[in-house]
Amino acid sequence: MALGTGYDAQGCFLARALEVVGERWTLLILRDCFYGVRHFSDLLAHLDVSRGVLTDRLDTLVDAGVLERHPAGRSVEYLLTEAGEDLWPTVFSLSRWGERHLTADHPGRIFGHAVCGTDIEDSGLCPRCGTVPTVRELDVRPAPGRNARRREDPVAIALRTRHRMLDPLP
Amino acid sequence: MALGTGYDAQGCFLARALEVVGERWTLLILRDCFYGVRHFSDLLAHLDVSRGVLTDRLDTLVDAGVLERHPAGRSVEYLLTEAGEDLWPTVFSLSRWGERHLTADHPGRIFGHAVCGTDIEDSGLCPRCGTVPTVRELDVRPAPGRNARRREDPVAIALRTRHRMLDPLP
Repeated sequence: MALGTGYDAQGCFLARALEVVGERWTLLILRDCFYGVRHFSDLLAHLDVSRGVLTDRLDTLVDAGVLERHPAGRSVEYLLTEAGEDLWPTVFSLSRWGERHLTADHPGRIFGHAVCGTDIEDSGLCPRCGTVPTVRELDVRPAPGRNARRREDPVAIALRTRHRMLDPLP
Repeated sequence: MALGTGYDAQGCFLARALEVVGERWTLLILRDCFYGVRHFSDLLAHLDVSRGVLTDRLDTLVDAGVLERHPAGRSVEYLLTEAGEDLWPTVFSLSRWGERHLTADHPGRIFGHAVCGTDIEDSGLCPRCGTVPTVRELDVRPAPGRNARRREDPVAIALRTRHRMLDPLP
C-alpha cells in the first residue's frame, strides 16, 4: 500500500486502513466523491491539490478497491465501490468533529435523511427513524453563515443548494 | 495548526479536522489513548514511532485541545479531553472499515456495550439498546485468530483480555 512501511508492526486494522486513506488529501478527495464528483478535472478544480498528487491518490484508491474507473464517453468517471461507500462514517464523523470543536470562517454542512426529511445527529443516527442511514440515503445543504472561503468552481457552486449525496456533481 | 497551508482554501470542517489529526501516526496515538494508555513511555513502546515524532504529535494534540497533560507523580499523563473523546467515532469507524474490507495477518477487536453486554454493530449502534454508546460505555477484547504481528510490550499484553475503554493501561 501507499504508505509502505511504518505502520507494518502495528497489528491493528486502523493501521491497515490508514495505509489506504491516511495520506494527505485522500479523505478530501473521498469527500468530493461522496458529494458526487466523478471527473478528474472537477476534483482538480475543487481541491487545491496538484495534478500529480491527485493522480497518485486516485491510483491508490483504485488499487485498494475504494474507487473504480468507468469509461464515460471520451473521459473516465471515478465511482465509489461498496467498500468506498463504507468510508462515509469516517468522513462524516471527522467533519462533524471539526464542526463541533474547531472554529472557522466558513459555515458547516447539514445532512438530512432523505426518506423522512429529518436532519441526522452527530452520531449519524436519524432521530425519527432510529437508524443510521447510509450515505445513499442522505442529502446535504450548507448551514447558514458567511463563507470567507467561498469558491467559484462548478462543484462549489452546485453545493450551495440541497443535493442528494452521490448524485452526479456538478 | 500543524499541517500549515495546503487545505487552507477548502472551506470545509473535514479539512479543518485533518489539520489537527491528519498527520501520520496521530490517529494511532489517539487509538492508544482510547485504550487508556497515558504515558509517553508506554506510547513509545507500543507504537513504532520515533521519540521526536511522538513528541511533535502530542504537542499538536495538546495545543488543539484534544489531549491534556496532567502531573502524575514525577511523570506526566496524557488524558483525552471531551473534544478528544469525541474523536472516537472516527477511530472506530475507520478500524471497522479496515476489518471489513482489508485482509491482514492479525485478528481484529470486538467492542461491547458494557452496560448490557451486547457487541455493537459496525455503525456504532448497540442493537439491544438502540443507542450509539460513547467510548466511555464500551469494552474491548481481541477477536479470535492467530496474530502474526503479536507484540510483547506491556500495552499489547494488557489488551489480550477484555478491557474497559479509557481505563488506565497497562
